[in-house]
Amino acid sequence: MSGAAVRQERASYYERIGHNHLAPLWESLHNLVPKAPQPRSVPAIWHYGEVRPLVMQAGEIISAEEAVRRVLVLENPGLAGASSITSTLYAGLQLILPGEIAPSHRHTQSALRFVIEGNSAWTAVDGERTPMHPGDFIITPSWTWHDHGNAVEAEGGEPVVWLDGLDIPLIRSLDVGFAENYPEAVQPLTKPEGDSFARFGHNMAPVRHRVENPTSPIFCYPYDRTREALDRLYRHGEIDAWDGVKLRYVNPTTGGWPMPTMATFMQLLPAGFRGRTYRSTDATVFCAVEGRGTARIGEAQFPFGPRDIFVVPSWAPVQLAASDDAVLFSFSDRPVQAALNLLREERS
Amino acid sequence: MSGAAVRQERASYYERIGHNHLAPLWESLHNLVPKAPQPRSVPAIWHYGEVRPLVMQAGEIISAEEAVRRVLVLENPGLAGASSITSTLYAGLQLILPGEIAPSHRHTQSALRFVIEGNSAWTAVDGERTPMHPGDFIITPSWTWHDHGNAVEAEGGEPVVWLDGLDIPLIRSLDVGFAENYPEAVQPLTKPEGDSFARFGHNMAPVRHRVENPTSPIFCYPYDRTREALDRLYRHGEIDAWDGVKLRYVNPTTGGWPMPTMATFMQLLPAGFRGRTYRSTDATVFCAVEGRGTARIGEAQFPFGPRDIFVVPSWAPVQLAASDDAVLFSFSDRPVQAALNLLREERS
Amino acid sequence: MSGAAVRQERASYYERIGHNHLAPLWESLHNLVPKAPQPRSVPAIWHYGEVRPLVMQAGEIISAEEAVRRVLVLENPGLAGASSITSTLYAGLQLILPGEIAPSHRHTQSALRFVIEGNSAWTAVDGERTPMHPGDFIITPSWTWHDHGNAVEAEGGEPVVWLDGLDIPLIRSLDVGFAENYPEAVQPLTKPEGDSFARFGHNMAPVRHRVENPTSPIFCYPYDRTREALDRLYRHGEIDAWDGVKLRYVNPTTGGWPMPTMATFMQLLPAGFRGRTYRSTDATVFCAVEGRGTARIGEAQFPFGPRDIFVVPSWAPVQLAASDDAVLFSFSDRPVQAALNLLREERS
Amino acid sequence: MSGAAVRQERASYYERIGHNHLAPLWESLHNLVPKAPQPRSVPAIWHYGEVRPLVMQAGEIISAEEAVRRVLVLENPGLAGASSITSTLYAGLQLILPGEIAPSHRHTQSALRFVIEGNSAWTAVDGERTPMHPGDFIITPSWTWHDHGNAVEAEGGEPVVWLDGLDIPLIRSLDVGFAENYPEAVQPLTKPEGDSFARFGHNMAPVRHRVENPTSPIFCYPYDRTREALDRLYRHGEIDAWDGVKLRYVNPTTGGWPMPTMATFMQLLPAGFRGRTYRSTDATVFCAVEGRGTARIGEAQFPFGPRDIFVVPSWAPVQLAASDDAVLFSFSDRPVQAALNLLREERS
Repeated sequence: MSGAAVRQERASYYERIGHNHLAPLWESLHNLVPKAPQPRSVPAIWHYGEVRPLVMQAGEIISAEEAVRRVLVLENPGLAGASSITSTLYAGLQLILPGEIAPSHRHTQSALRFVIEGNSAWTAVDGERTPMHPGDFIITPSWTWHDHGNAVEAEGGEPVVWLDGLDIPLIRSLDVGFAENYPEAVQPLTKPEGDSFARFGHNMAPVRHRVENPTSPIFCYPYDRTREALDRLYRHGEIDAWDGVKLRYVNPTTGGWPMPTMATFMQLLPAGFRGRTYRSTDATVFCAVEGRGTARIGEAQFPFGPRDIFVVPSWAPVQLAASDDAVLFSFSDRPVQAALNLLREERS
Repeated sequence: MSGAAVRQERASYYERIGHNHLAPLWESLHNLVPKAPQPRSVPAIWHYGEVRPLVMQAGEIISAEEAVRRVLVLENPGLAGASSITSTLYAGLQLILPGEIAPSHRHTQSALRFVIEGNSAWTAVDGERTPMHPGDFIITPSWTWHDHGNAVEAEGGEPVVWLDGLDIPLIRSLDVGFAENYPEAVQPLTKPEGDSFARFGHNMAPVRHRVENPTSPIFCYPYDRTREALDRLYRHGEIDAWDGVKLRYVNPTTGGWPMPTMATFMQLLPAGFRGRTYRSTDATVFCAVEGRGTARIGEAQFPFGPRDIFVVPSWAPVQLAASDDAVLFSFSDRPVQAALNLLREERS
Repeated sequence: MSGAAVRQERASYYERIGHNHLAPLWESLHNLVPKAPQPRSVPAIWHYGEVRPLVMQAGEIISAEEAVRRVLVLENPGLAGASSITSTLYAGLQLILPGEIAPSHRHTQSALRFVIEGNSAWTAVDGERTPMHPGDFIITPSWTWHDHGNAVEAEGGEPVVWLDGLDIPLIRSLDVGFAENYPEAVQPLTKPEGDSFARFGHNMAPVRHRVENPTSPIFCYPYDRTREALDRLYRHGEIDAWDGVKLRYVNPTTGGWPMPTMATFMQLLPAGFRGRTYRSTDATVFCAVEGRGTARIGEAQFPFGPRDIFVVPSWAPVQLAASDDAVLFSFSDRPVQAALNLLREERS
Repeated sequence: MSGAAVRQERASYYERIGHNHLAPLWESLHNLVPKAPQPRSVPAIWHYGEVRPLVMQAGEIISAEEAVRRVLVLENPGLAGASSITSTLYAGLQLILPGEIAPSHRHTQSALRFVIEGNSAWTAVDGERTPMHPGDFIITPSWTWHDHGNAVEAEGGEPVVWLDGLDIPLIRSLDVGFAENYPEAVQPLTKPEGDSFARFGHNMAPVRHRVENPTSPIFCYPYDRTREALDRLYRHGEIDAWDGVKLRYVNPTTGGWPMPTMATFMQLLPAGFRGRTYRSTDATVFCAVEGRGTARIGEAQFPFGPRDIFVVPSWAPVQLAASDDAVLFSFSDRPVQAALNLLREERS
């Protein structure tokens, strides 16, 4: 049979089986089972200087109450319309103005907040409030009630912006999303501020505590402690050729990640650091806290400064450099990949 | 400002921020964080009597060698074009004719084979071959070399069909897919047949074995043993009002699932069984082995007989009934949902 | 000060502080913190041919009912009066005559039974009975009701002897021993024979089973399956230079040991095998099942035949040899040492 | 047969089997398998005011160098001659004078140091030094090089006393003791002071750290942090009716205990607290840090003040009371009992 005849025969066969919801694997095998990851997401950066005015305009466009969450989604250019920054993660910049409340709800999506500017807001999780300061890393674990608020101007309220990181695309791809609104805007406080940290933050734990789920009982990891640890290790000469000084946040009741679906990291690149190239399968979102530097992602160069946010797709080669001491927060779906024995890393 | 003016102002704002790859969360929040799972997949059934002729025609349309894997994908009608039976799982019917080889390769996708008809084929995994018989459950774990073959007709070869289950959509959504072809069609055999089972199948293990990954060292779970266990428990009166007699396959070195991304089950519905309604977040693919019955999924009724395959989307209510003793194999992404603390079940 | 004066001054000081229940560490440091283990237990063997008549005499000396458990303790010559075969383990030979019952009780001590002769007895654990045959390994886990019985002569009852292994000295040294008698001699049977094995013995498990304690839900590991596994691996050429073919018994719900305090093993030494020397910190009790050979323990040679029992103290060098195919059952406190990160092994 | 004849026959049988190292279980069953724990250890207290002069005299009797460790063992009156404070634990008071060194060695025994008086000493573990201050809890894990030293008088050296807690009796009963001296008195320092704490003390961890053993990488838990946590929880109204405010020390890389064989706790009994009665199977050593109170152990009353040490045997009922705010450090073999599923507690 001629090539054309074969093609024709097959096309007609494909149409026939299509009526039975059958499709020929052999026509798509290479796409379905690729030689290496083929992420749709691409490297990208959001310079805070450019996006900040737009974030502030959101404050004029809509109230926190109407918006429920007044957030500008950082949408990966490769995933237009998908509200995703990587294939599994969502990121956004949330603005809360003095006196506003982002009302209480809960959902199976896990969320992290990384504070970018402003000192007057708070987050409440499961009956306890924590203040929010730039550089603080705060979690709102899966299915916990949470709301946010900001002091009124008279009491020092100022616009507060933080980076939201959620596992929305992952939860969607697993079809496990549930959500619920709290009957009131603000949940009642049942514990004093600092209670969770007193119980679990000092390398101790209440004697009768039992670990019942994988999320950290500490929900605010303050920047001053993180910064002190990085600094001390830097002074001890602890420099990794790829990462500089890099720590991960820990759930102190398990030694694992603070949440089961997202890993979080903080690293220090000392002035003049020029990192070697690495890549890993967990696409990662970075947010600069201090200092300036350059991220080389694949073939592209991304100069970054404080509060800039950039994203590295799965398996893209990365090289980090700093002109002055730079501190980078980052997060990825590493715990998912590790739990499923799928994480790969390569250092060159 | 009038409603129209507000809408206009916002639309213009949205367009402006779109240039910076920003999008307003509040316009999509309800879709991104739904009250309950909104799977795109729908309930569906493939009657083996209808699809078998099409599978056999595939044997005329293309050779196993050219196809690499001669498989008809069971495509969920709600996920047309996505080569998926659920949002995270792939299923297909693979045909291998007498004397054919499906050449050796490996990939990060985990795969399961559930034998539907024919007795003359084999699967080789990591240097060991296992024969394949109807009802046998066989795994080819992530990143293990595997190939399949069939005896020539002179030696008893007959067409063999099995159900393939893979985590292709999950691996794609995590961007962690890698694949490699073996330099030859068939990998060399380094272990005698039955070796893995002798080491791990008898509730014993080699004294120096260390668990180094989460997949089961047993790669064939023969039907006769599974059937015997179901039978015995049935005779002991072990009937669950929702499930009948239901067992899960176990990795004997951990007590966990045979593979980290897919759970597998076998259950017996005794003649006359009329199960109560349940639902769970792990969308599930069923394959009938013996007997006849009905699956009520959501509002639809699906009568099934031997070798029929049907799929239950996430959170859809299910009710199983049997007219004569029915045996059902099933698989889902339950280990993923459980590892991430996201699995929900409801029994009514 | 002269040496004598120093000694005198110290002696007087030691006496003085003794009144306050204080003692000078420096006088005993080397004994308390030795360079290497200094077990009080010594190598020893009990030839079944010699002890069997004494065991049978016990049947005349006392009834099972009066004795509660008619057992001759195998007392390590180095631990006279301590009812111990090693520093943490107890071993004994239990005799049960036709028609007798060893009444139901439970205790925190874990127990194993390894059947030596006779086919007519049974053990009941938690409402299920299992028959006992030579070579079977049976557990009665911590705090489970258990009783034993034997058929009357008219129904085939014959004297049955098994090896008991318990963690009595360990439990005593931890001061955690509790015990309770069941109100009746025999506990009621609530499950059919073979039920546990049907649920857990076939590399499957009931779908809703949750692991709640570390002991195996299978309580009889029949010899025929163990023997078959050893045989198959032997035919596959799996010979370790120290151990021959050696398997450990597994709790199929965890992959760990059947009980948290005692490890159990079965090994095959092929005819002519002459093992290399090893030692480990877990003192071990061996019981020959089939065949003949020699155990070199430290400097001593112990020829052994079927049903002989010998003990290897902690850290004593061992070399095993077989003249004809020999099968050895063994047990030790390895899980305790492993859990506490204290196990050491050395192979030369 | 008369009772006397029976007794005689049995005695003669017992003697006969004794030659074969066999003993009748039925004569000792009740002792071997008791209804409840029968510890040989008894409740006891050491008042620091009484023992301190004796400890200081040890400084005149022997040098640290000659003694290797200049320690007065706190010997339980029920375990005279056994160098044990409970059946599994050892406790002692160690004195180190200005300018002295306790030379470097390592052993499989795990050790804890709880500082009682003096501020000028240090402990080095695995190449890192930590200063020691009253109330600090310091570990020297199994098989880690460790040495202690004290500043010379000219640099502020003063006598330093701490409580040593080791698992010596446990290690002896398992026959797993190994020890080794370091070739020099003091091991070389390879890490700056505070390095471990910077890496692991702030609820973060180095990104490439892998947990390879169960001991905490933090080896000093300073009192000021512990005290602050207790205080904060007390002010939050967290009072347990049995324990007051009680925290356990945590290995931050696992959430488990700092060492696999010993649990450590710190608790606050507020002024006027009168605890309810509890008991548990883990015999426990207490050391008062601040305040005064009374421990009722079994039938005995033990008034205690700062630096007093008392011991509670397994399963003895305990009731704690405080006249002014009292802080109690304590340790037990709880991790061993928990790992083996043997721990029992009772609160009344």
